[in-house]
Amino acid sequence: MRPFILVNCAMSADGKISTKERRQVKISGKNDFLRVDRIKAESDAIMVGIGTVLADNPSLTVKSDELKQKRRARGADENPVRIVVDSAARIPPNAEILHKGRGKRIIAVSSRAPEAKVRELEFVADIIRTGDMQVDLAALMERLHAKGIRSVMVEGGGTLIGSLFAQDLVDEFCTFVGNMVIGGADAPTPADGAGFVAEDAFSRLSLVSAEPLDEGVLLRWKVARSP
Amino acid sequence: MRPFILVNCAMSADGKISTKERRQVKISGKNDFLRVDRIKAESDAIMVGIGTVLADNPSLTVKSDELKQKRRARGADENPVRIVVDSAARIPPNAEILHKGRGKRIIAVSSRAPEAKVRELEFVADIIRTGDMQVDLAALMERLHAKGIRSVMVEGGGTLIGSLFAQDLVDEFCTFVGNMVIGGADAPTPADGAGFVAEDAFSRLSLVSAEPLDEGVLLRWKVARSP
Repeated sequence: MRPFILVNCAMSADGKISTKERRQVKISGKNDFLRVDRIKAESDAIMVGIGTVLADNPSLTVKSDELKQKRRARGADENPVRIVVDSAARIPPNAEILHKGRGKRIIAVSSRAPEAKVRELEFVADIIRTGDMQVDLAALMERLHAKGIRSVMVEGGGTLIGSLFAQDLVDEFCTFVGNMVIGGADAPTPADGAGFVAEDAFSRLSLVSAEPLDEGVLLRWKVARSP
Repeated sequence: MRPFILVNCAMSADGKISTKERRQVKISGKNDFLRVDRIKAESDAIMVGIGTVLADNPSLTVKSDELKQKRRARGADENPVRIVVDSAARIPPNAEILHKGRGKRIIAVSSRAPEAKVRELEFVADIIRTGDMQVDLAALMERLHAKGIRSVMVEGGGTLIGSLFAQDLVDEFCTFVGNMVIGGADAPTPADGAGFVAEDAFSRLSLVSAEPLDEGVLLRWKVARSP
């Protein structure tokens, strides 16, 4: 058993999630921001890869006071459980995600994470250790389900999302396509990592909707699975 | 003066135009195929980069007999002028694009193209030489306009499209977004090359339409320019 996994990202019209320098850029607009905040508030957990933490230092808190209050009203923490996939425990102890806003944190590490660093992180987060060199994502999801987490929103980056697709661990894929071309063979994309080679290995999707939003388009896909 | 430039490509839901091995994959479906054939038949010229010729060996002919006949009926060649941007004149003399179907061919080369190879290619194509190390795309477009070419459809690949955006030489950008995730940090995307770094340098677009087509979505963008 694993949680429902929604991957959400914003990409340029040419499929980039930031520049080749991995600098965070504004791709979506106000309405998409509100949509993302709402989904975040409705999720049990929000997950990012360590690359995104190192590049953007996000807090991943719910921004709307109203949505935070709604969460409290139903007995939940103000923010969903924030999860960082960080095989080697590289997260800086002062990262925003570990300190800003109330709520639980989980750092998912692998066996190669240094013991001393893990003990230091245990003061601010729960540690889940799976996998030898890399976090075993399927095992991690099972552990999250066992902790009562039924829905996970994945906010990036490309490497984590690529791994989730490669291991068939995605249920829904939302991309906001923004009205700009960023370009660059080395710019990160929504699904990086090794990628698929054989056509019959591609993750197959089914279109749920394509709706103009802000200056771009929101595409919602379900992952198609054989019954 | 330059022709109207339409860039057309098909990408996966995660912004890839093929796998990291640059193998041609089926991203769109029958209706998109017919749409592309129609636009091709309505264009004065169709353009690709040498990378696409080397990877896919396309003929870029019009496929529909009816559309070919329409072109002949208005006194045009059966196929639009086929143009390869090939700075170093690397095109194999037996490439499909040089032999399959009727119509003119143009190979755009730069000063570094070997003279002997250029003389060989002159038997099967017109040669336009611009630029020192790379084809000067703006100058090429002016030369095409002077030859009476008023519309160019660009079919890829990512490097050529990236260069055209970088030099502000695109008027319309059509992407068919297919229902699959290909993944891969090294897989080609609709706009590769160096890419933009500064946010105010991004090519800005304006959404024309977002319509479901086949199993995916067709996104049409105009390039936004200050008046």
